[in-house]
Amino acid sequence: MRLYFSPLACSMATRIALYEADADASFVEVDAKTKRTLPGGGDFTEKSPLGLVPTLETDDGQLLTENAAILQWVADRFPKAALAPQDAAGRTRLVEWLSFIGTELHKAIFAPLLDKNAPEGAKAYALGKVEPRFRRIERHLEGRPFLLPKFSVADAYLVTVLTWTVATPIDLKATWPALAAYVKGVRTLPSVAKAFAEERELYAAEMARAG
Amino acid sequence: MRLYFSPLACSMATRIALYEADADASFVEVDAKTKRTLPGGGDFTEKSPLGLVPTLETDDGQLLTENAAILQWVADRFPKAALAPQDAAGRTRLVEWLSFIGTELHKAIFAPLLDKNAPEGAKAYALGKVEPRFRRIERHLEGRPFLLPKFSVADAYLVTVLTWTVATPIDLKATWPALAAYVKGVRTLPSVAKAFAEERELYAAEMARAG
Repeated sequence: MRLYFSPLACSMATRIALYEADADASFVEVDAKTKRTLPGGGDFTEKSPLGLVPTLETDDGQLLTENAAILQWVADRFPKAALAPQDAAGRTRLVEWLSFIGTELHKAIFAPLLDKNAPEGAKAYALGKVEPRFRRIERHLEGRPFLLPKFSVADAYLVTVLTWTVATPIDLKATWPALAAYVKGVRTLPSVAKAFAEERELYAAEMARAG
Repeated sequence: MRLYFSPLACSMATRIALYEADADASFVEVDAKTKRTLPGGGDFTEKSPLGLVPTLETDDGQLLTENAAILQWVADRFPKAALAPQDAAGRTRLVEWLSFIGTELHKAIFAPLLDKNAPEGAKAYALGKVEPRFRRIERHLEGRPFLLPKFSVADAYLVTVLTWTVATPIDLKATWPALAAYVKGVRTLPSVAKAFAEERELYAAEMARAG
């Protein structure tokens, strides 16, 4: 299978899941600005209509989009890695967290905050949403190393998203100690540490290209 | 089970699913502004930390949040209603659509557009996202009555969200004819027509209370 990704974007959650599963996968970088694949310059919008990463191309040529769908597909494809609860009640809680991270954190807060072209009003509106949403996960993660009883693809997504705070006015360590401790803990997992180290380097190269 | 809802909010998707399933459910209205239940005035944030509808209280006292999780839970609880594909590939496509509607339409576009307190910049930013996202679903729905081969909970969610365009500058009929035809078609389903008629009336009462 082939993962289309951009460095340190939300597609890193899928990379972490693939590393956890020890999956045979290739990784194709997409320039977030030009929507061209690297190297080579293929038109990524032919793979994903909105040009959004992650997009996963399966070995039988299916193209999957949307984090919640791709992460669960990887978890189901590699059951031995135990990246999702196997029971129905546990799966419902996983879906709940994936949806919360995707809608309330990623799209409502981080998408406008990280977008250089977003107007000030959009950023102010996003910042106004931080307190209740971060409080919810702060309370949940007090004394817990993971969102669910074990590491899951929801943690792969959440650690990716929370790390973006470094590029925003949100001071995780000062204001949300349980979230800061959670991120620190999850980043010690070998799969997560490897993904971060590799994508940080690719991100630096992307910045250098952009001048 | 008990569905906490606000009239014409995204919780209507769950009402439609429950009607399709002929489920034994009660419906508790939440005043979207005060976060109090009606009648009686109970504090809804005790049920749902962010005070967001839909929240579903199951018969064994579990509280479920997030559309994607609740809609799939209802589909799985009432398999005879066939509200979700039973095969793994079909389920992945369902999850993909639920995630797309939740993140790219509901949160990225409609949440700021429908919020009277959102600054102009947030609304302009949201409007800038309409074209590629609506184009994606317009193309997909050309010649199709539903997102998947059969009606599913994703249609219950999408018809609810697209109907909100009447309160925005988006002119569905003039600009997105396939989407307008889709909404018109889905709204002829008895479950959908019943849900819309009931919630429209409750919405009018809510507006009257607000003066």
